[in-house]
Amino acid sequence: MDHMISENGETSAEGSICGYDSLHQLLSANLKPELYQEVNRLLLGRNCGRSLEQIVLPESAKALSSKHDFDLQAASFSADKEQMRNPRVVRVGLIQNSIALPTTAPFSDQTRGIFDKLKPIIDAAGVAGVNILCLQEAWTMPFAFCTRERRWCEFAEPVDGESTKFLQELAKKYNMVIVSPILERDIDHGEVLWNTAVIIGNNGNIIGKHRKNHIPRVGDFNESTYYMEGDTGHPVFETVFGKIAVNICYGRHHPLNWLAFGLNGAEIVFNPSATVGELSEPMWPIEARNAAIANSYFVGSINRVGTEVFPNPFTSGDGKPQHNDFGHFYGSSHFSAPDASCTPSLSRYKDGLLISDMDLNLCRQYKDKWGFRMTARYEVYADLLAKYIKPDFKPQVVSDPLLHKNST
Amino acid sequence: MDHMISENGETSAEGSICGYDSLHQLLSANLKPELYQEVNRLLLGRNCGRSLEQIVLPESAKALSSKHDFDLQAASFSADKEQMRNPRVVRVGLIQNSIALPTTAPFSDQTRGIFDKLKPIIDAAGVAGVNILCLQEAWTMPFAFCTRERRWCEFAEPVDGESTKFLQELAKKYNMVIVSPILERDIDHGEVLWNTAVIIGNNGNIIGKHRKNHIPRVGDFNESTYYMEGDTGHPVFETVFGKIAVNICYGRHHPLNWLAFGLNGAEIVFNPSATVGELSEPMWPIEARNAAIANSYFVGSINRVGTEVFPNPFTSGDGKPQHNDFGHFYGSSHFSAPDASCTPSLSRYKDGLLISDMDLNLCRQYKDKWGFRMTARYEVYADLLAKYIKPDFKPQVVSDPLLHKNST
Amino acid sequence: MDHMISENGETSAEGSICGYDSLHQLLSANLKPELYQEVNRLLLGRNCGRSLEQIVLPESAKALSSKHDFDLQAASFSADKEQMRNPRVVRVGLIQNSIALPTTAPFSDQTRGIFDKLKPIIDAAGVAGVNILCLQEAWTMPFAFCTRERRWCEFAEPVDGESTKFLQELAKKYNMVIVSPILERDIDHGEVLWNTAVIIGNNGNIIGKHRKNHIPRVGDFNESTYYMEGDTGHPVFETVFGKIAVNICYGRHHPLNWLAFGLNGAEIVFNPSATVGELSEPMWPIEARNAAIANSYFVGSINRVGTEVFPNPFTSGDGKPQHNDFGHFYGSSHFSAPDASCTPSLSRYKDGLLISDMDLNLCRQYKDKWGFRMTARYEVYADLLAKYIKPDFKPQVVSDPLLHKNST
Amino acid sequence: MDHMISENGETSAEGSICGYDSLHQLLSANLKPELYQEVNRLLLGRNCGRSLEQIVLPESAKALSSKHDFDLQAASFSADKEQMRNPRVVRVGLIQNSIALPTTAPFSDQTRGIFDKLKPIIDAAGVAGVNILCLQEAWTMPFAFCTRERRWCEFAEPVDGESTKFLQELAKKYNMVIVSPILERDIDHGEVLWNTAVIIGNNGNIIGKHRKNHIPRVGDFNESTYYMEGDTGHPVFETVFGKIAVNICYGRHHPLNWLAFGLNGAEIVFNPSATVGELSEPMWPIEARNAAIANSYFVGSINRVGTEVFPNPFTSGDGKPQHNDFGHFYGSSHFSAPDASCTPSLSRYKDGLLISDMDLNLCRQYKDKWGFRMTARYEVYADLLAKYIKPDFKPQVVSDPLLHKNST
Repeated sequence: MDHMISENGETSAEGSICGYDSLHQLLSANLKPELYQEVNRLLLGRNCGRSLEQIVLPESAKALSSKHDFDLQAASFSADKEQMRNPRVVRVGLIQNSIALPTTAPFSDQTRGIFDKLKPIIDAAGVAGVNILCLQEAWTMPFAFCTRERRWCEFAEPVDGESTKFLQELAKKYNMVIVSPILERDIDHGEVLWNTAVIIGNNGNIIGKHRKNHIPRVGDFNESTYYMEGDTGHPVFETVFGKIAVNICYGRHHPLNWLAFGLNGAEIVFNPSATVGELSEPMWPIEARNAAIANSYFVGSINRVGTEVFPNPFTSGDGKPQHNDFGHFYGSSHFSAPDASCTPSLSRYKDGLLISDMDLNLCRQYKDKWGFRMTARYEVYADLLAKYIKPDFKPQVVSDPLLHKNST
Repeated sequence: MDHMISENGETSAEGSICGYDSLHQLLSANLKPELYQEVNRLLLGRNCGRSLEQIVLPESAKALSSKHDFDLQAASFSADKEQMRNPRVVRVGLIQNSIALPTTAPFSDQTRGIFDKLKPIIDAAGVAGVNILCLQEAWTMPFAFCTRERRWCEFAEPVDGESTKFLQELAKKYNMVIVSPILERDIDHGEVLWNTAVIIGNNGNIIGKHRKNHIPRVGDFNESTYYMEGDTGHPVFETVFGKIAVNICYGRHHPLNWLAFGLNGAEIVFNPSATVGELSEPMWPIEARNAAIANSYFVGSINRVGTEVFPNPFTSGDGKPQHNDFGHFYGSSHFSAPDASCTPSLSRYKDGLLISDMDLNLCRQYKDKWGFRMTARYEVYADLLAKYIKPDFKPQVVSDPLLHKNST
Repeated sequence: MDHMISENGETSAEGSICGYDSLHQLLSANLKPELYQEVNRLLLGRNCGRSLEQIVLPESAKALSSKHDFDLQAASFSADKEQMRNPRVVRVGLIQNSIALPTTAPFSDQTRGIFDKLKPIIDAAGVAGVNILCLQEAWTMPFAFCTRERRWCEFAEPVDGESTKFLQELAKKYNMVIVSPILERDIDHGEVLWNTAVIIGNNGNIIGKHRKNHIPRVGDFNESTYYMEGDTGHPVFETVFGKIAVNICYGRHHPLNWLAFGLNGAEIVFNPSATVGELSEPMWPIEARNAAIANSYFVGSINRVGTEVFPNPFTSGDGKPQHNDFGHFYGSSHFSAPDASCTPSLSRYKDGLLISDMDLNLCRQYKDKWGFRMTARYEVYADLLAKYIKPDFKPQVVSDPLLHKNST
Repeated sequence: MDHMISENGETSAEGSICGYDSLHQLLSANLKPELYQEVNRLLLGRNCGRSLEQIVLPESAKALSSKHDFDLQAASFSADKEQMRNPRVVRVGLIQNSIALPTTAPFSDQTRGIFDKLKPIIDAAGVAGVNILCLQEAWTMPFAFCTRERRWCEFAEPVDGESTKFLQELAKKYNMVIVSPILERDIDHGEVLWNTAVIIGNNGNIIGKHRKNHIPRVGDFNESTYYMEGDTGHPVFETVFGKIAVNICYGRHHPLNWLAFGLNGAEIVFNPSATVGELSEPMWPIEARNAAIANSYFVGSINRVGTEVFPNPFTSGDGKPQHNDFGHFYGSSHFSAPDASCTPSLSRYKDGLLISDMDLNLCRQYKDKWGFRMTARYEVYADLLAKYIKPDFKPQVVSDPLLHKNST
């Protein structure tokens, strides 16, 4: 989750894009249909030659969405028909949300407030038949690492803590796998903190966990103040609905991280994040989609929404005076597919549930079609990296022999 | 160079986007200024907080552009002022072009025709003070690999062949480094063919060469019929203007390939390509920009333009009948920067010269700012890849113990 | 598997040679005995000074052959009597067959149909006491790589897949080692495809596997579209009956490939292939026999039979229009021995089982007799190859100093 | 040159095949035309889709042939028309001959007698416009190495000795490159003997020499008694007519030897030999043709003719009593081309001159077409050979783990 406070202030007060929920809404509202259709192809790609089909969700889900005012969108990715395998369509959900109470409220109220806010959204996912649901990074708390204050550590909990118990009920109720990224307190290892995604099975059991591999120390993202690089490798969790993995936030800037989940067989990789700012926003629709293309798997990108104001002002290491807020988390959660198609994004400022049906057969179809795995030459890169990590690594540089003749 | 013939037919006959040269022209012509300004930020990012500044080119360059009817654009990337280093601004050029004569013309005429077509464009780059110029993949010939016919091998030449001699004169004349991607005939190694970029120094000397690392075998891109994976590793060429490397075409789908040029210290990586088709077009603005972001260097992406019709029809392995053309090469060449900003793209169907001033200091600034190199944990991935290439590699999979209890 | 569609049309409709099953049948039917006897010496060589002895097979085997209409031949290679070693006679079998159903049938039916067709032929080998049996390349499927369509990838299976399970039963039943060349799907390595020979032990266990080392990209043989060069080196499998290896199809054009299996100690090298066409047919009796001579081991060459017609037409890169069939696979499977003797070939168009008894002692006898290993000077060639693979390799050329005086 | 005395005596007293000059004459005389045409395709291949065209030689050449009773044949290999290169047709000649006088005659007479015998045959080549002519191995002397007697060493001469002077005149006269394989006495290096081919340029100058790389010690071929393995590597001689090399006799059994001349760029490789015997004869049409196919160059195979009787009887290491002759040298010289086509062979027992026109462009066309050089993976074999020559080399053997359970 990376952030540059926008120099010339936010686009508009409440985080919309000139009043529109998302770039796609802005474009579709302001371009003639035949123009939008072509722009849509260039920006969102094609799935099986067509733009993504919308999914009609049950009324009960829609009702919850309007009653609790959260954005609800659903689109589906299909794959070619195969002879030897039936379609393996799985329904996947992403929830983005703002915090429920001001950061000055008692911590337990804040967390309880977030539980209450998420309950109806998770219900909507449940009634809509979502099989695998992923929440946003550190969903139980405000993204307080900008303060570098230690008190926020109290939001940390063990893997089988309160938030997991809350979700285990819902997992069992809806026969739903839930990915729950939290701040973990590791009781047995010196009570050290980790940024951890807990994987809850559709029977409510804890399948396992993955700790964030790459930790930012960028501007307001002082996460290295709180936790170290994860020690769980790149696990892929085999659930009844398919093989999933979690690339947490800042990990999305690391192609090797995406690659590793693919090498271990992931079919869907979630990227729960918390990112703000004018500069990082143009990167948001690139990195996840690139990973889906390069590694031939689906990616679910989630970003929290809203502006979180903290009691004590803090500075951002950019030479500017102290300030109290983290800037606007621009949501825009979306799904990317191996064939370079992707859904329009959720709202830039509202809570939201994005649902997608995805035929997991598309992964292997695109591994065969593009041949990126086949032509990867991993042995060449295994050899390069083995050399690179040595102190005496010499870069492969070919210097112009006449370099010093008449250099400017 | 990856291609899917568009299922529902080309956008419009001569390759424009609903009559516009590029997506950016379409949006800027059809959106109110304040909307376009925000869309522009989201799609093209910001450089030092602002959208890219246009460069005013000398009249002589503009005259050549209008006389020879090629698209001419120029924008500059700046970096923060530093105390210990002066700005290292280098002027870089990309040329995209269609072939000059029908593919039925005698081969030597076809190549000569392309030389004549490129001369004024290279002159324009020269008079505009371009320091480093890159041409498109296999620029001396039609992209005939779709046919799998062997006769096109006659376009191959040694590294110091006719095309290199043609460019050496211009390199000396304009004190310009020129990257020349050709089909190489390796005289000393069994006359085997390679897809090779020749690096010509600003004194007209041959600095070295790089052979395409990843070879496609996708639909009409039967390049594995003609040449094997390159054997030159990931060289970075130290020129008087900066450290450059060349990631040829299909290599852009391989994050490890981009990574390796970065590990060897590249500041600008060119991606000369030849790619067509509706499905691959949505990937074109993603992969190069992702590489620039992830590896903190500049990327120059070039794609040829036009539709090339071949005498003998060929099939594409997509179950469809034989056809004579490769589909529309959609140009859209562009530059990407480490800060996620990028230039608008050149025309989707015209020849063109894209010029950009880039302060190479931006690379290190963004290595420090985002910390992607610092937090990369290369040793983790060196270890993973070393294991992965072994036959007995076991993916790191955590299976839900209750998987077989009541799977739906 | 290399192919040139015959320019002047097939020899006769159903693939015979002017009505005869094989060249040898044609010659023996049309030449007076004493002429044929001398022609036979020149074309098939001598084993221990005599032409090969026929083996009398059990009636049950012959009954299966006539009932299921497959060609059944058997000849034996003997060796000189030795003092210190007993004869090591092993009975080896080769099966060539056409596909069972049209390529438009459901894939699972096509594979099941081939299982059913092969069962009685394998039984015949079993009751005839065959110790080691080899099937043809990609025996479970039509040789569909000419189409470059991805759907045929569905025929791929893991090493321990359905076809291996089918053969493991028969291996155990008949105490027979079975070499099973299939299209492998490598589950643990990104589901990438390989052209792989599975080695099943006489106890039904999987001893190991070897992946095709050299991949063709010639005319209709677009195998580089589907899989890369093998990564298993040149393994020799030590079975209870002797040391065997597998040089798959296109590998037979590479003397270094044959050499490597010999250096690793192979006594019998199988060459399961799929090759068609007038031009490649003259090569078929040369390359395998040359390998047996040069490396002093036995070679078993297998080629499929019949003409396979595919639903969607495809072009062959030879400038000719699209067509639906691969041309006639001309069978002609045969055994070659280290003493340059070789069996007559199986039918050019019928399914067939070729059995041969071979005294493996002949290998060492010919290593001693011809001294090819002793006089090989491997160090000279190790040095040459080490230099050749370097970019700066300079060929050893002695130019006529007067070359430029009065060259014509 | 390798030999096994035929156990059951020669086919017919004077060396014919049942009275016919060659296998091809026997077949064409005894098979109906349409059968012979198909047998001819299978045994001699096709060049550009057709059987080889005969060349009409000048009457003067034919007159010499009938006057001096030597077999005279001529056929031509064409190549596809190319755009960027003109055809490079070179006329090449091979001379096979028996010795002139009994081996009991004075040595100088024997050599003089061979000069006199060859003069008219070389003249025939000259008037027929032969550009490059190759003589047989140790053409100046009887192949006396079977005796292991030292007196025959007197036939040895320095590179610029009498035989070279004799040929230099003819080379100049006919503007003809001549390859002269002799027994060399190395004056400057202890007068040591070598089996050496002298390369005489079309201006009569000595371009260079190549010494036999692999030396037989097989039965009557006791050449290791007289000379060591050559120390001149694998030179390719660049003459005005093309790049040639010489693989002397026993070298033809070593694929690495053939390979090395190809790696150094040879377009035509001559194989001057001296070989007898029933067993080696079946190998004669295989090894040279295999080399032409595998290395995509032309091969000219020459074998002497006749039976040479020596004064003192000698034994052959085969347990049989002493005998006075070397057995019948079966001539059968022939040309092989990269496309697997080859000429019918010269007579099995007469002196002869075989002429062939060959378009050297065919070499590169077949390198591109079959791709054997491209797909060779030389680095894999450089690595294997580097390991193989080490004392601690371990063959890559995969043993059946159940090997010792119930081995027969």
